Amino acid sequence: MDKPDKTTVQIACIQMQPVVGELKQNRTRSLSLIRKAAEQGAQLVVLPELANSGYMFASRQEAFALAEPLPDGETAQALIKQAEELGIWLVAGIAEHAGDRLYNSALVAGPRGYIGSYRKLHLWGEENQFFEPGDSGLPVFHTDWGVLGVAICYDGWFPEVYRLLALQGADVIAVPTNWVFMPGQTPESPTVHHSLCLAGAHSNGLVIASAARIGIERGMHFVGRSLIAGSEGFALSAAGSSENEEIIMAEVDIAAMRRKRQFNAFNHIQRDRRTDLYNIYV
Amino acid sequence: MDKPDKTTVQIACIQMQPVVGELKQNRTRSLSLIRKAAEQGAQLVVLPELANSGYMFASRQEAFALAEPLPDGETAQALIKQAEELGIWLVAGIAEHAGDRLYNSALVAGPRGYIGSYRKLHLWGEENQFFEPGDSGLPVFHTDWGVLGVAICYDGWFPEVYRLLALQGADVIAVPTNWVFMPGQTPESPTVHHSLCLAGAHSNGLVIASAARIGIERGMHFVGRSLIAGSEGFALSAAGSSENEEIIMAEVDIAAMRRKRQFNAFNHIQRDRRTDLYNIYV
Repeated sequence: MDKPDKTTVQIACIQMQPVVGELKQNRTRSLSLIRKAAEQGAQLVVLPELANSGYMFASRQEAFALAEPLPDGETAQALIKQAEELGIWLVAGIAEHAGDRLYNSALVAGPRGYIGSYRKLHLWGEENQFFEPGDSGLPVFHTDWGVLGVAICYDGWFPEVYRLLALQGADVIAVPTNWVFMPGQTPESPTVHHSLCLAGAHSNGLVIASAARIGIERGMHFVGRSLIAGSEGFALSAAGSSENEEIIMAEVDIAAMRRKRQFNAFNHIQRDRRTDLYNIYV
Repeated sequence: MDKPDKTTVQIACIQMQPVVGELKQNRTRSLSLIRKAAEQGAQLVVLPELANSGYMFASRQEAFALAEPLPDGETAQALIKQAEELGIWLVAGIAEHAGDRLYNSALVAGPRGYIGSYRKLHLWGEENQFFEPGDSGLPVFHTDWGVLGVAICYDGWFPEVYRLLALQGADVIAVPTNWVFMPGQTPESPTVHHSLCLAGAHSNGLVIASAARIGIERGMHFVGRSLIAGSEGFALSAAGSSENEEIIMAEVDIAAMRRKRQFNAFNHIQRDRRTDLYNIYV
């Protein structure tokens, strides 16, 4: 062959500020930023957690009113249509209304339409008042460029999540997130969120693409600082601040990344696990 | 009670430069630095990986010649005696000679003498030419101030290790390590090692105290940058460089740390695990 197959994917994380209750405004802004990312070459676009609804619900009634079914809800349909039109993959945080239950979910769509969804496994704080814990496991989605996994925010505190996606072959984990300030953290300090992403990416040999929201909503101050963490444990791209809307992008060579999981003649980051021992403890 | 019980422990990590083959010099230097740390108030002192022997063995013959039995070897006996004399706990990397086998091990000693040992589970690179993979599991050691776990260097790439120690109650994980430069890393860059420690500490609600070696030995350049990672995911203390001998110290309030594992009314970092789901994947 004169030319190697294209093995790269261009990833974009959209750092934005959804506004609680403003479904139409959030949808319009999301579509506009996704289009902008695609115009810049993005093939996979990640939106923050609960990008359709905002985060700080005042009551279960409000949460139910702002949630929508997947994939039939208005925002979901608009996002799916846009993924088809632009020929891109899309992972977007959606407040999901499923029968009598709400889930903190992520929609996955692609050039051929709706692909699937993920329901957040580990709920944080007051989310426990509104949502049910995820019951859809940790699915992976096979795409033209590689294997896509999804996690949401507090899921990333549990190394089991990234590990179990890696064991199913994930190359890129898209993380819609609404990171909040943790104890000891200031806007200027290093963030525990970045350490969790960088460690998760490195110890699994994959990319973790986290799209975080910004702004203060009903008293909650969000961290922003979206990050695309590379498989070698370094930031491929990071938002400059906690304050601004921003699209961060990074190109990842999936084939090269898979090869680099073999560190040297002896060590492969995924095959060196001492599975003979781990299971005697759990 | 007028005064609360003392629930703190003062931890020291000794960043030093063992020299391959120089058993006596390494022992003397280790004892001197441990004494210095104790004089500064250290109650738990961590030494680097293979602190007795150095790291870059030229042959199996050399490795066998430099290794010693545990706890009867000359360095081990000197360290145990010093722990008793100083009334401190000690975790030190030791090349262990056990019958016809070598292990990359850590000695654990305390004010009442020998406590136990740990054998590195995940061997890195050329270590596979000299050592057997650890066969002693992931023991924890109960002390006057809390529960101590041990891991060695590349073990930290596997989140299972810190997790499985945490599930057994570990408060502090002592990590003798000889971090080497990873792909993409420069002496000035952030280190993947720090991300792994900070994430491991935070996602388990415990302290990870890593004592790293420095220097260039037979062409291998070591990273140094020893780190005591706090349970909230921030550095409690970090060595200033990759170049200098240094003792880093941090005081940890074990009781406060255990309470802080409960983040809020809903979330406890160790109890939020979705064990109902994790085991269906592995």
